[in-house]
Amino acid sequence: VREVQIHPIRHDDPAYSALIGRGILSMALADLEQRYAGRRVFVVTDAHVEAAGHLAALVQDRRVGRYVIEPPGEVSKNMNTVIAILEAMEREKYGRDSVLAALGGGTVGDIGGFVAGIFKRGIPCAQLPTTTVSQADSAVGGKVGVDSALSKNAYGLFRQPARVYVDVTTLATMDERGYRAGLVESVKHALIADEAGFESIEANLEKLLARDEATLEEIAERNLTIKARIVEQDPEEKNLRRVLNYGHTVGHAIESASGFRMLHGESVALGILAAARIAEEIGISDGTAGRRAAAVLRRLGMPEKRPPEVSAAQLAEAMSRDKKSVAAAPRFVLVDRIGHVYRAKDGEYAVPVAPAALAKALEAIRA
Amino acid sequence: VREVQIHPIRHDDPAYSALIGRGILSMALADLEQRYAGRRVFVVTDAHVEAAGHLAALVQDRRVGRYVIEPPGEVSKNMNTVIAILEAMEREKYGRDSVLAALGGGTVGDIGGFVAGIFKRGIPCAQLPTTTVSQADSAVGGKVGVDSALSKNAYGLFRQPARVYVDVTTLATMDERGYRAGLVESVKHALIADEAGFESIEANLEKLLARDEATLEEIAERNLTIKARIVEQDPEEKNLRRVLNYGHTVGHAIESASGFRMLHGESVALGILAAARIAEEIGISDGTAGRRAAAVLRRLGMPEKRPPEVSAAQLAEAMSRDKKSVAAAPRFVLVDRIGHVYRAKDGEYAVPVAPAALAKALEAIRA
Repeated sequence: VREVQIHPIRHDDPAYSALIGRGILSMALADLEQRYAGRRVFVVTDAHVEAAGHLAALVQDRRVGRYVIEPPGEVSKNMNTVIAILEAMEREKYGRDSVLAALGGGTVGDIGGFVAGIFKRGIPCAQLPTTTVSQADSAVGGKVGVDSALSKNAYGLFRQPARVYVDVTTLATMDERGYRAGLVESVKHALIADEAGFESIEANLEKLLARDEATLEEIAERNLTIKARIVEQDPEEKNLRRVLNYGHTVGHAIESASGFRMLHGESVALGILAAARIAEEIGISDGTAGRRAAAVLRRLGMPEKRPPEVSAAQLAEAMSRDKKSVAAAPRFVLVDRIGHVYRAKDGEYAVPVAPAALAKALEAIRA
Repeated sequence: VREVQIHPIRHDDPAYSALIGRGILSMALADLEQRYAGRRVFVVTDAHVEAAGHLAALVQDRRVGRYVIEPPGEVSKNMNTVIAILEAMEREKYGRDSVLAALGGGTVGDIGGFVAGIFKRGIPCAQLPTTTVSQADSAVGGKVGVDSALSKNAYGLFRQPARVYVDVTTLATMDERGYRAGLVESVKHALIADEAGFESIEANLEKLLARDEATLEEIAERNLTIKARIVEQDPEEKNLRRVLNYGHTVGHAIESASGFRMLHGESVALGILAAARIAEEIGISDGTAGRRAAAVLRRLGMPEKRPPEVSAAQLAEAMSRDKKSVAAAPRFVLVDRIGHVYRAKDGEYAVPVAPAALAKALEAIRA
C-alpha cells in the first residue's frame, strides 16, 4: 500500500492520508473503525458501484448502514438526494459519532462529502473513489456539493476528507470509454506539473490501457501528490489552484455545448489541444509540449475535433459565462513546456487571451 | 456604537466584530457594502420582522434582494426553507461575490447562517439579531443549521459570522412575554461568568423591563463578551463551551415535554432553579447564588413551577435522550457561586448527578 500525505490545508485541519493499493477496499472499513473507534460507519454509494460488486467488497459481512444513489450520475447530484441520505442516516439513528464513507465516482464523492459536512454540523468523511477521474482528481481537494436547477456545484463546501482509499482494482469494472476519458486528468496533471510523470505515461501507455495495476498505482500516486501539493498551497482557488483547470476553459464549454454527450475527459482533451495551440500562437511555447500531448491523447483514443454541431460562437458564449471569466473575457491556463505552467508578469496563472488567438485555437479543433 | 471583538476561532478565521448601538440598522448595509466592496447584499428575514418595520429600517430605499421567511418561527426552520432561499438567490443572479445579511431572531440567524455557509461553497454572513435571545446568544458563536423531521438542529455547520450588528432599538417591538423570556439568557451568562454583571442586572432590572436602551446596550455588550470569550476557547463544545448550557438540561426537557407551549427562556428559568437546587443538594453551593437567581427570575415574571401535566418521569426520559447525555445519564452544569461554574476533579464542566439529587430538584419545581 502506497501512502500520500496531504498536509493541513487550514492550520486547524488535521493532515490526512490517501492510501493507494490493490484490493484495499476489503480492509478500508476495518482501518476506518480502528481510526475512529466507537463511531459507526455509514456508506454512500450508487447503483452502478453496487452492481459492479464494489459495495460488497467494502462491506463484506458487516452490518453497516448504506444509501445507494439511484439513478447514478449527475442527474442525482441535487439537494433531493442530499436530504434523502440525511434522513436515512437519522432514521437509522446515526448521530454525531458517525463516519461517512463515500464509495464511487466523482458524483458520489461530491454528494457524500457534502452530506458529511452538514450532518449534525459535520462528521468525518472517507473518500473511496472507484473511477479514473475520481481517483486522479476529485477524491482529494475538498470541493464537495451538488447542482441546482440553474447551475453546477451551486451548493456545497470546501471541506477536506478524513482519509482517502484508492483501490486501483475497482477500475477493472469501468466501461472502456469512461476509463480512457478519465485518464485525461492524469495527462493534465503531468502536463502542468510533472515532466517525469509525462514521460512515464508516454512509456507505459499500453500498460495503462491494459489496466495494469502496478502502473495504475504509480500514476495514482503521482496524481494525488500533484493535486495535494497544489491544493495545500491554495485551497480556495485564489490563483495557483487554477492550474488544475488546464484544458477546462474550452473543455467545459464543449462539454456543455454538446449537451453532455461528450464525456468530461473527452472535452478536456480537446481543451488541452486548444490551449496548446493558444500557447504556440502567442509565442510562449515552441509547440513541442502540444505535439507530445496530442500524441498521448490520440493513443488514448480521445477526439481530435469538436462535434460538428458545436459552433465557435456557442463556445465563446459558454466561456463568457464561465465562473473564472473576468468581465466576460475567458482566462486560460497555458503550458509553456511539459510539466510547467506559464505565469503572467502580474503573477496570475490564468491569463486573458486575445480573441484572434482563441479563434485560431478553436479553428484548429474544428471538424 | 460599542464594539466587541471576537477573536479568530480557528487560526485561519478572521477576527470579527459585533457592533452594538441604537438605530444602527440604518447604517448596517452601508457599513457592509464598504467592507465588502463590489459584493451584492442579500437579506434573509421573516414576516414578523418585516411587519415590525425592521426590514424597512435596514434596507431603506436600496435595491437589495431579500427573502422573507413565512410563516416565521421554528416551523420554517427546515431544508425546504433553505432550498427556497438558495434558489431565490440564484434566480436573482447572486454569485460567489455576495454577502448574506440575516435579520431577525434565532431562527432567521440559524437559517441564514447555514444558507450563507453552503451557497457557492460559502459566502460571508452578517448577523443582525432583533430579539432578546438572539442578541444575547445565538448571533455570536457560529452554530447554524436547521431541524429535520426527527430532530432539532440536525443539519448545519460550525461557521462564524463575518460581522454582527446588535441594534437594541429593535427590541421595542417585541411582545412582552418573548421579551422577558429572552432576558433569561442574560441572567444565565451573568450567573456562569460575570458577578458584576449579575449585580448590574439586580440593580437595573426595572430599567431593563422598561426597555431602557442604554441599559440594553450595556447588557448586550456583557452578553457578547462572555459568549465570545467562551466560544473562542472551545468553539466545538468539547468541554468549556458546555457552561453555556447552564439551566438547559432540565430546561430543554421541560420545553420539549410541554410541547413547546413554554418558551425557551421560561423553561431555562426553571432549569436554572433546578440546577441551583442540585448544587445545594450535593453540597457545592451554600444556596446564596440560587436564592439571588430565583429573585431575579421572579422579578422577570418567569414561572417558578413546571406545568402540572409535565411529570418527573417525562423529564427524566427527555433528559436521557439529550445529546449531551453520556450512557443515558444527564449531565449538569452547576454554579457554585455567582459568576462561577463548578468544575469536577476530572476537569469536566458538565457533571453527572445522582438520581436522588435530581429527583429533589425536580420536586422543588413541581406545581
